Amino acid sequence: MTAELPDVTLPEGEHCHTGHTLCMPEDSRKRAARRLAIARGHLDSIRRSLEDPDVYCVDVLRQIKAVQGALDGAAGVILRGHLEAHVATAATRGDEAEIVDELMEIFKYV
Amino acid sequence: MTAELPDVTLPEGEHCHTGHTLCMPEDSRKRAARRLAIARGHLDSIRRSLEDPDVYCVDVLRQIKAVQGALDGAAGVILRGHLEAHVATAATRGDEAEIVDELMEIFKYV
Amino acid sequence: MTAELPDVTLPEGEHCHTGHTLCMPEDSRKRAARRLAIARGHLDSIRRSLEDPDVYCVDVLRQIKAVQGALDGAAGVILRGHLEAHVATAATRGDEAEIVDELMEIFKYV
Amino acid sequence: MTAELPDVTLPEGEHCHTGHTLCMPEDSRKRAARRLAIARGHLDSIRRSLEDPDVYCVDVLRQIKAVQGALDGAAGVILRGHLEAHVATAATRGDEAEIVDELMEIFKYV
Repeated sequence: MTAELPDVTLPEGEHCHTGHTLCMPEDSRKRAARRLAIARGHLDSIRRSLEDPDVYCVDVLRQIKAVQGALDGAAGVILRGHLEAHVATAATRGDEAEIVDELMEIFKYV
Repeated sequence: MTAELPDVTLPEGEHCHTGHTLCMPEDSRKRAARRLAIARGHLDSIRRSLEDPDVYCVDVLRQIKAVQGALDGAAGVILRGHLEAHVATAATRGDEAEIVDELMEIFKYV
Repeated sequence: MTAELPDVTLPEGEHCHTGHTLCMPEDSRKRAARRLAIARGHLDSIRRSLEDPDVYCVDVLRQIKAVQGALDGAAGVILRGHLEAHVATAATRGDEAEIVDELMEIFKYV
Repeated sequence: MTAELPDVTLPEGEHCHTGHTLCMPEDSRKRAARRLAIARGHLDSIRRSLEDPDVYCVDVLRQIKAVQGALDGAAGVILRGHLEAHVATAATRGDEAEIVDELMEIFKYV
């Protein structure tokens, strides 16, 4: 199905590696991986800070928020790639219903 | 531009009332309006409760959360209509870049 | 119970109007009411915009977000008053368990 | 300062390890550490999934949401400990202003 995607409609020239399913644009995949690697380093440093019995609650809450921001950033990269490569092109494939249902579930709207 | 939208791709047979711009599917518009009317009634009752000097903070916070939930519901209805009528069809119109940028801004991702 | 609250610990000299229960600091109550009045005006203008068949989804989503921001602002005012007047003083009254449970429920953490 | 905290007001008998500053209740610290270890394992499995060129955007978005949920859980544990051990007792120490400002910043309210 993805074989029929007109590449010209994909802003960054993404390629799918299989013909039978939608897959993440490579650029999104690599950029998201980099952000998740940063989030993981940050998370490890929070885990180490929790070994200190004198650590302060609010400092840890701030650090957790920072990791959540990094995860939001990774999710944003993936979401943009998904919107460009798969959602904006849904009508050309005919799978709008599934694509929209999936997205709405992700956004936690009923 | 919307005149070129193949109606057959719209799950609920939405019509646009003007030919020169995208507009909200009528069903979304009516359902969102009903939810906003409910949110407004709820908001008014919170405002009245704030006239009582003995009102309790947590009760008002809970009520505000309920109104936020009603607004989320209205936004969800509109978002679904937008995804179905405008985003899933973007590649057929050629305005993917604008459509995706708009959505990402709404989702507050950079 | 609130009669025993040492007023000197309340940053803005809040008074409770009844002696038997916690109630919202008057300053929070008035400021929250003003913000909710603004949110309501904004909500009404969104409801009017939904009468226009040519209204655009993304414009309405942006407006709903603005109303949610105003509600967050009102909730923030109330939360701050609650933390100052009721939570920070809980140990002096002995109702920490209830106060903390209530707050955690508001924050939707388990 | 924490030396003056009446331990009897802390629901779970938390001890601070230093006398000169507030520190996280040990139970919160250990439970948060366990949850962050789980979040880290989950995050690593997402990172591995991103090495697969055929991974699907929505699957990764769902996994990131799950990690966000685990981080919310850890933050909830820490927040509850903080409210019980430090916020509910602030009036007994006299640092309500700082404690409330810190919390409001965490909640991102102005």
